[in-house]
Amino acid sequence: MRIAVLGVGLIGGSIGHAARARIEGAEVAGWDPDPELLARAVELGAIDRAAASVPDAVQGAELVFCAAPVGALPALAAEALAAAGPDTAVTDVGSVKHEALAALAGDSRFIGGHPLAGAETSGVENSRADLFEGARWYLTPTAGTAGVLYDRVQRTVAALGARPQAIDAAAHDRLMATVSHLPHVLANVLVEQASEALASDSARLPEVGPSFRDAARVAGSNPGIWADIYTGNGEAIAGEVEAVAARLRAVAELIRAGDRDAVASWQSAAAERRRELLEGELAGGPLHELRLRVPNRPGIVAEIALALGRASVNIEDMALYPAADMSTGAVSLYVAGDAEAERAATLIRGLGHDVSRVER
Amino acid sequence: MRIAVLGVGLIGGSIGHAARARIEGAEVAGWDPDPELLARAVELGAIDRAAASVPDAVQGAELVFCAAPVGALPALAAEALAAAGPDTAVTDVGSVKHEALAALAGDSRFIGGHPLAGAETSGVENSRADLFEGARWYLTPTAGTAGVLYDRVQRTVAALGARPQAIDAAAHDRLMATVSHLPHVLANVLVEQASEALASDSARLPEVGPSFRDAARVAGSNPGIWADIYTGNGEAIAGEVEAVAARLRAVAELIRAGDRDAVASWQSAAAERRRELLEGELAGGPLHELRLRVPNRPGIVAEIALALGRASVNIEDMALYPAADMSTGAVSLYVAGDAEAERAATLIRGLGHDVSRVER
Repeated sequence: MRIAVLGVGLIGGSIGHAARARIEGAEVAGWDPDPELLARAVELGAIDRAAASVPDAVQGAELVFCAAPVGALPALAAEALAAAGPDTAVTDVGSVKHEALAALAGDSRFIGGHPLAGAETSGVENSRADLFEGARWYLTPTAGTAGVLYDRVQRTVAALGARPQAIDAAAHDRLMATVSHLPHVLANVLVEQASEALASDSARLPEVGPSFRDAARVAGSNPGIWADIYTGNGEAIAGEVEAVAARLRAVAELIRAGDRDAVASWQSAAAERRRELLEGELAGGPLHELRLRVPNRPGIVAEIALALGRASVNIEDMALYPAADMSTGAVSLYVAGDAEAERAATLIRGLGHDVSRVER
Repeated sequence: MRIAVLGVGLIGGSIGHAARARIEGAEVAGWDPDPELLARAVELGAIDRAAASVPDAVQGAELVFCAAPVGALPALAAEALAAAGPDTAVTDVGSVKHEALAALAGDSRFIGGHPLAGAETSGVENSRADLFEGARWYLTPTAGTAGVLYDRVQRTVAALGARPQAIDAAAHDRLMATVSHLPHVLANVLVEQASEALASDSARLPEVGPSFRDAARVAGSNPGIWADIYTGNGEAIAGEVEAVAARLRAVAELIRAGDRDAVASWQSAAAERRRELLEGELAGGPLHELRLRVPNRPGIVAEIALALGRASVNIEDMALYPAADMSTGAVSLYVAGDAEAERAATLIRGLGHDVSRVER
């Protein structure tokens, strides 16, 4: 199978690696606007050959992956379609689909794609054959998509190790707007609000607890990437943002009304929704949060994690928070399963730390 | 010095422990509505004697700490003031001050208080003499507060190890509304929005990344405690929530307008604000985020943390996120200082893991 990869960063490089490792007879031509990256991709074995241009890469390919940054994808995909023959499928890997690629959706050879993988690293140096192992890979065919080409993309993505799933492009973008883009907007707005509130009261930020840190963690993430995402998925994100604004106005009314029982019900409902949303993912039963206080010195997290590791208790998630004077820190450990959480608490107590189960 | 502690949970018990350990000649009378807890506080050495009633505890005390849950504080403090003599100072430890305690603010003997400590554990079993070491302890005197009594409270709080700071009660509540209560409201609203968005598109929550997990972590936290906080600090929280709603509407417009440069500037400004807000706290220089991907098996976090610990690199904050198929996980490590971050990256690479610096 002849595959072209346009853009050989983490995702494009990993598509090349995975295709070469997992698909018999795969032959991967790569192209990148940066000739050094392209040469490096050949050196690393991510691609079989470096193409001189987009048409050179696409020439004779059965499947073309466009793996550029979101802002550059529409033009790149259009160039690939112009150079590709009638039996070539063209797909992309961008995190927004509907608006940005609307102009291409009429071409029966184009099928939008979005693998949920790789956010934690970047660059061809980190590319590898197992990047997509078990990862969801959304595909956004339309009524006009050629069935045989969709089938080819879908099979290839599965062969790369991913789990393909067809989804309407607009629904995909709403989903991403909600679960990925909206948290970033909320983080930005929270730090804006805190900045101005503190300035107007001449207050210093107090030694903030976990809730503020967690909520502000992604504020202002890579402005170049995020400007592309916010503008590329503008309608869906703006819609989600407005919906949240409306919810917040309703919450302000609820809180002002001062009915303690109504407020407690609202809080309980949020707990229930959080459980439904997040715990479905985890194997091993309901998630428990264990909190402990430890000296804030290098190595202490290791001792605890190692003790749990020896007992085969896996830590699903963790958060560390230094205390006011930096001499101690609070640690929240999230462990799946009732018995595992109990075992973890016992082990931690055995190390001489106080630990408590957080009621949610 | 004769001290009364009304309510002997984590905070009240720790006040008793700290006073007995750190203040020469301190004599601590304790009272609690739960006689078993009260007996346990005596056993643990948190208090010198168990009082039979609020008046019995307050009798002859120079300083009374009211350490009940937020919802029960106004009535408890009023009872203490009724039983106390004219030279007795009465303070509390509630996380909201202005509205809830407005009725007491006219009494020259009452000074509101709020130590920022203890959120990570609860119960008298976890109480200890160093709970307040280095912690901010807000005090909210008014124009009518007796100077000699304020001085007594302030000195005692400092003697317990804390760093007292006077703040206007309303400003305190706005500050807490912004940095502590608002993140909880946003988490709740985000899970509501995600729940309904997913239901309306018949979508499953995709394998969500760090941003959603972080943003949703405190959604639905202990409904009893939070219903007290939301209603006790209703005006300030509702004001913050409405301000954020207004900001979100402006963000929706900004995003809809589609001016990529304007959106990128907004994102950069958020990054700058986040840095100003959060990095001031950290010793050792600017915070760096290192991301790596590791097998999702017990013990792996320990190996990394231990290697960093051996090299005396401290991990300021950490987040773990299992990947789609649970076979690998992404880890974000936050390290303060340029040189430390570089050293950490080198060490982690030496363990055979790919690591990348996240650009903010």
